[in-house]
Amino acid sequence: MSNELLVESLPLAAAGGGPLFGRVAFIGIGLIGSSMARALAKLGLAREIVCSARSQATCDKALELGLVSQASTDAGAMVAGADLVVLCSPVGTYADLAARIAPHCTPGAIVTDVGSVKQAVIRDVAPHLPEGVHLVPGHPVAGTEHSGPEAGFAELFENRWCILTPPAGANEEAVAKVADMWRRFGSNVEFMEASHHDKVLAITSHLPHLIAYTIVGTATDLEEDTKSEVIKFSAGGFRDFTRIAASDPVMWRDIFLNNREAVLEIIQRFNEDITALQRAIRWGEGDKLEELFTRTRAIRRGVIDAKQA
Amino acid sequence: MSNELLVESLPLAAAGGGPLFGRVAFIGIGLIGSSMARALAKLGLAREIVCSARSQATCDKALELGLVSQASTDAGAMVAGADLVVLCSPVGTYADLAARIAPHCTPGAIVTDVGSVKQAVIRDVAPHLPEGVHLVPGHPVAGTEHSGPEAGFAELFENRWCILTPPAGANEEAVAKVADMWRRFGSNVEFMEASHHDKVLAITSHLPHLIAYTIVGTATDLEEDTKSEVIKFSAGGFRDFTRIAASDPVMWRDIFLNNREAVLEIIQRFNEDITALQRAIRWGEGDKLEELFTRTRAIRRGVIDAKQA
Repeated sequence: MSNELLVESLPLAAAGGGPLFGRVAFIGIGLIGSSMARALAKLGLAREIVCSARSQATCDKALELGLVSQASTDAGAMVAGADLVVLCSPVGTYADLAARIAPHCTPGAIVTDVGSVKQAVIRDVAPHLPEGVHLVPGHPVAGTEHSGPEAGFAELFENRWCILTPPAGANEEAVAKVADMWRRFGSNVEFMEASHHDKVLAITSHLPHLIAYTIVGTATDLEEDTKSEVIKFSAGGFRDFTRIAASDPVMWRDIFLNNREAVLEIIQRFNEDITALQRAIRWGEGDKLEELFTRTRAIRRGVIDAKQA
Repeated sequence: MSNELLVESLPLAAAGGGPLFGRVAFIGIGLIGSSMARALAKLGLAREIVCSARSQATCDKALELGLVSQASTDAGAMVAGADLVVLCSPVGTYADLAARIAPHCTPGAIVTDVGSVKQAVIRDVAPHLPEGVHLVPGHPVAGTEHSGPEAGFAELFENRWCILTPPAGANEEAVAKVADMWRRFGSNVEFMEASHHDKVLAITSHLPHLIAYTIVGTATDLEEDTKSEVIKFSAGGFRDFTRIAASDPVMWRDIFLNNREAVLEIIQRFNEDITALQRAIRWGEGDKLEELFTRTRAIRRGVIDAKQA
C-alpha cells in the first residue's frame, strides 16, 4: 500500500522538509485536534488529513472549515490507510475507541494522543493495538478555555511544552517522528515516565482546574442577588478563575476520573495548607500570611523567567 | 487660605470641566495611588498633587517619575492644605495614619481611600477625623499583580467598578465629588453598605487570592526537582494562579486580617464544596463532576457579557 511506502521513505522526506506523514486521522477534532490539523496543513507535514467525530455535525463542521478532506462518524474507516492516528477525544473514550480502530490500523501506523493523563492512556489503548502498530502517548501543555473545531489555531503550540511518555520498548522511529512533528509545531518536547507526568500535571494543571471549578461553583451557589454581583465585581481576582472553569466539562471529568490517585493526593496537601492559612487568619497571625505571600511572589518571577507567563 | 477658596468654588469649576480639587495628597503611592495621580494629571483634575510615603526612597521615586510636585515622609505636612486626602497604603496602617494626619487636615477636606476592605476603614479612620472633615471610603475594583509607583498607569480604572461605601450621615457633596472623580477616570461607580461590600469582595477577590496563594505555596513545598517542573509546565493552569499570587504581600496580609469574618465564612463554604468534589472523584461519580463543570462554564459567559473578562 502506498502509505507503507510513504512511511519507509519518510526519514528522507523529513530531512528535506517535506511531509512527515501520508494520511493523518484525527479521532475527535476539538480545540487541540483542529489546531494540530491547521499546523500540519500550514507546514505541509501531511499529504492527507481526515477525521472522525462522534457527531455528524462535528464532521460537517470540520469539512466546512477545510480542516480535513474526509470526515466520518466511522472511526475505523478513517484510520484505514493512515500512518498517523491522533486520539483527540476525552480520555474516557479511549478504551472503546482503541478496540474499534485496532482492526483497521495499517501495519506500521503510529497511534498518538493529546490527553492530559498518560498512565490511563497506556492502560486503555495499548492492550488493543496489534503488533506493529506503535503507541506514542503525548500531551501538549497548551490550550484555551474555548473548545470545538472552530476554536483551534495553528500557533497554539508555539513555545509550549509537549510531553511524550512512550512506554518501555516503544518503537524509537515512531517516537522520533512524533517528537519531530511537535518540534515543527514550535513546541519544546520533553520525555517523561507516564506516572511522573501524571503527578506533575496533577499539581500544575488538574488541581488548578479543580479549584477553579470549585470556587466558581461556591460563588454561584450564593443567592441570586449576590450571584450577579459576583460577576459584576469579578475583576478583583474571580474572573481569572472563571476563565479556567470554562474549560470543556467532559474532557475535565475524564481527566479527574483517570488521574484519581495523584489528584486526591494533591487535594489532600492543598487542604492541609488552606487549613493552616485559615487558622492564621482566625488567630491574626499576620507574619505567617506575609511570609507565604512573599514566597509565592517569587514563584511568579520563575514563571516569567521560564517564558510561560 | 487659597485652598479653602478653591474648594468653595469647585462645583462651578467641575461643571466647566476644570479641576475638581486644589491640592490632592496621596498617603502611599503604589500601583493604585500612582495610577490615580497619573489620571488626575492627565485629566487636569487637580491643581497640585503631593504624596507621603513611609520610605524616602518611595518619595524620591514619586518625584522622579513626575507624579507629584512635593513628597515627604511626614504625612501631616502633606495633608496640610489638601482638599482631598487619599489613603493608598495597606489598610493595616490606616488607624495610625488617621491619628497622625487628623490634626493637619484642612476643614472641609475629604478623606478617601482605596482599600479592599471597607468596614475596617470606617472603624479605624472615622473616630480620628475632626468635625468638618469628610470620610468617603472607596474601593476601585482594579489592579494588576505589579506594585510600586512605577507600576501605575492612568487607564487602570477604565471600565472597572469603583465601590463607594459612605457611612450613614456622610456629607453628600463630598460623596458626589469623589464619585465624580472616579467617573472621570472611566469607572462605573456603585454605592454599597460597607458590610455588604466586605461580603461580596470576600468571594470575588479575597477567596481567589487566598486560594492562589495556597496552591502556589503547596506546589513550592514539593521537592526541588518537582518545583522546577511546576514552573516549566505551568501553562496548564497553574500560571494563572501564580499571577494572582504575585500580588503585594503586605497589602493582602492586611486585607485578610481586616475582613476576617467574611473570609473565614467563605473559606468554610469553599471547603465543603471541594470536599464534595474530592468525594465524587474518589467514588468515580462522573455525572456530579460534569454537572458542576457545565454550570461553571455558563458563569464565564456572564463575565464576558458583563465586559469584565
